[in-house]
Amino acid sequence: MRQNSSTDIDTAVPEPSQASTPRAVDRWMLSLLQRGFGTAPVGFVLWDGTQSSPPDGPTAGRLLVKDRRTLVGLLLDPELNFGEAYSSGRLDVLGDLPSLLEQTYRAWEQEGRNRRPPRRFTLRRPNTLRRARENIHHHYDIGNDFYRLWLDEQMLYTCAYFPAPGESLERAQVAKMDHVCRKLRLRPGDKVVEAGCGWGALALHMARHYGVEVKAFNISTEQIRYGRGRARAEGLEGRVEFIEDDYRTIRGRFDAFVSVGMLEHVGREKYAELREVIGRCLRRDGGRGLLHFIGRDRVRSLNPWIRRRIFPGAYPPTLRETLEAILEPGGLSVIDVENLRLHYARTLEHWQERFEGAVEQVRAMFGEPFVRAWRLYLAGSQAAFATGWMQLFQVVFAHTGDNDVAWTRDHMYGAGS
Amino acid sequence: MRQNSSTDIDTAVPEPSQASTPRAVDRWMLSLLQRGFGTAPVGFVLWDGTQSSPPDGPTAGRLLVKDRRTLVGLLLDPELNFGEAYSSGRLDVLGDLPSLLEQTYRAWEQEGRNRRPPRRFTLRRPNTLRRARENIHHHYDIGNDFYRLWLDEQMLYTCAYFPAPGESLERAQVAKMDHVCRKLRLRPGDKVVEAGCGWGALALHMARHYGVEVKAFNISTEQIRYGRGRARAEGLEGRVEFIEDDYRTIRGRFDAFVSVGMLEHVGREKYAELREVIGRCLRRDGGRGLLHFIGRDRVRSLNPWIRRRIFPGAYPPTLRETLEAILEPGGLSVIDVENLRLHYARTLEHWQERFEGAVEQVRAMFGEPFVRAWRLYLAGSQAAFATGWMQLFQVVFAHTGDNDVAWTRDHMYGAGS
Repeated sequence: MRQNSSTDIDTAVPEPSQASTPRAVDRWMLSLLQRGFGTAPVGFVLWDGTQSSPPDGPTAGRLLVKDRRTLVGLLLDPELNFGEAYSSGRLDVLGDLPSLLEQTYRAWEQEGRNRRPPRRFTLRRPNTLRRARENIHHHYDIGNDFYRLWLDEQMLYTCAYFPAPGESLERAQVAKMDHVCRKLRLRPGDKVVEAGCGWGALALHMARHYGVEVKAFNISTEQIRYGRGRARAEGLEGRVEFIEDDYRTIRGRFDAFVSVGMLEHVGREKYAELREVIGRCLRRDGGRGLLHFIGRDRVRSLNPWIRRRIFPGAYPPTLRETLEAILEPGGLSVIDVENLRLHYARTLEHWQERFEGAVEQVRAMFGEPFVRAWRLYLAGSQAAFATGWMQLFQVVFAHTGDNDVAWTRDHMYGAGS
Repeated sequence: MRQNSSTDIDTAVPEPSQASTPRAVDRWMLSLLQRGFGTAPVGFVLWDGTQSSPPDGPTAGRLLVKDRRTLVGLLLDPELNFGEAYSSGRLDVLGDLPSLLEQTYRAWEQEGRNRRPPRRFTLRRPNTLRRARENIHHHYDIGNDFYRLWLDEQMLYTCAYFPAPGESLERAQVAKMDHVCRKLRLRPGDKVVEAGCGWGALALHMARHYGVEVKAFNISTEQIRYGRGRARAEGLEGRVEFIEDDYRTIRGRFDAFVSVGMLEHVGREKYAELREVIGRCLRRDGGRGLLHFIGRDRVRSLNPWIRRRIFPGAYPPTLRETLEAILEPGGLSVIDVENLRLHYARTLEHWQERFEGAVEQVRAMFGEPFVRAWRLYLAGSQAAFATGWMQLFQVVFAHTGDNDVAWTRDHMYGAGS
């Protein structure tokens, strides 16, 4: 039954109150909050049980707002304070969090919110070498023990490639590495540079299975240490060099340039520097490049809570922005683009399941607010990819006019792939 | 041997003179012209045999400038007057035309001319419905008899897809149609709209082999008549409707939108109208779109001679421009991009060979200047694709957030492809 959102406030289902009794002003704020959620099928419950419902009913669940401070915060800056309140436990979900987020994003996408121009007054600090290091330390140096609890065995923290949707995460991450290597047409003896190598799985995979030499850059101390350990253990030190440094320090010429999951952390202000690095390090005759990154269909700021708590300095660009700032002025030619958005949604489903399976250990390590923050981040990311709020692009490129490019894509889909 | 271009002028090899004896001013103009060609390995010969060579020698051949008017014209507006002089026979090539053009483009690409900003003061008239009709009539209504002389048997006048470089043109054009149909994931019963259908080969192919219903739009009277004739002859009138009208008049909802080789003729000023057409005619749940078009890596005006004599109103956009003006603001999501530049170079090799094989008939129909203009246009186009001066993009898209997209590209490369 279709109801008017602003009048559907009643106190029929009281909840244990832990704050003051709602006053007229609270009900008025509640109606504003409900209106702000638009057609999202999400209702609200205040601390005393006062309820509010959206036009078509709260089919995705209700949000329990536990005190007045939270209600005010959600009105003033919903994008930031939803995450803050949820993590601290002042906001709860009565229903399934991933499903509630996905239905909300889908409703907002259909309303066209994704197409609204971004906020104009967001303060963004460029990622200087020092700030880049701080930002990356913030997220990636939480501790390898933490990531080992819920990533695949090779510790890949980027979108997997599922040959079929039911494939295991372990196999899908290996398939992703092969997908990338095939797109790069790696040949034994090639010199490859990897910008932002995570825990080193792709660098080691390329060296072991494709016979190439890899220089792998990363500014996360913990990740580099881990990668070096694996290289030693697997006898690949001679073929994979892990370099704890910024991508901007890359020197030399390479047959292939690859970067998986780093562009999101570069920041728009620094695309010219990345372009310069690619331009000088990629061979002009037969050099192949690949950028794998989280992107958008429309320009939009990153959610401010994600930027504050999860990924400082991050920005997912549109495909157009990467063309405008990196590929076109860099004298580079787009060979192939693939959008793997639904593969990232699937990857995040696996991560969520594993995270919840290890949640007691995570709670013991970092406490409940951390658990709730990461639960929200993983569920929100899955919802964003599942609804088209975010994209995952793989872009293959070469210098303009270089004819040493693949004739067709058949080599990527041959027997055994 | 490296020589200085401006001093390498001598009169050692006199040619039969047909104009006045060169004066000091002619030699000065010749040295300017030579300098303007930069590192292109192309020399010049004036009407009396006066020669000029580029820094590394005229390894690609020489251009014979037959009179002073042509020399002046080449200096004032080389891009326009090269074509004008060549067509009229006032300029000749001593050497192989396609190879000379290809080496010139390659040298210029390496000099970075492709990256220079475009001219600012080009007058471009928007393609109103009436002007679009005139422009298309200019090129496509020359007569089906002419195109039949050198196109494949199904009359496809767009880039073919060669599963292997040695494939025949006939088979490569069929492979192209199947490549497009697979990218669109056509299913029996689908309603498909084609914007700019040429002589109708793709529309008929889709209906016959994929069991879909097609509405095919084109404003070329001769092409539509030809397509209707084929539909009748092949018993496909009930499934393919050829509509002699502009793409802007498309109405209704379709499972697939396809346009092969039309975007180049739309003109930047009208991208918003095309976007509006796609947005309203493509189903929001499971609608698949494909744009196949000649593009660029960098913004550049179309060669003014091509625009005047061959394709009035045409403009090949960069991938960024199509994202900026059509896909991003249209609420569309890029699923797949493939660059088939080298396939177009190969297609043009076939066309040139067939054109030269039928050149006596073409000369009898239209005269020598027409033959020379088309020879230059075909050779110049081949050179442009072979050197990266032009690109051929196939872009697959859907409405943002539509999850009825292909899980992988495996369906395009299965057995039998």
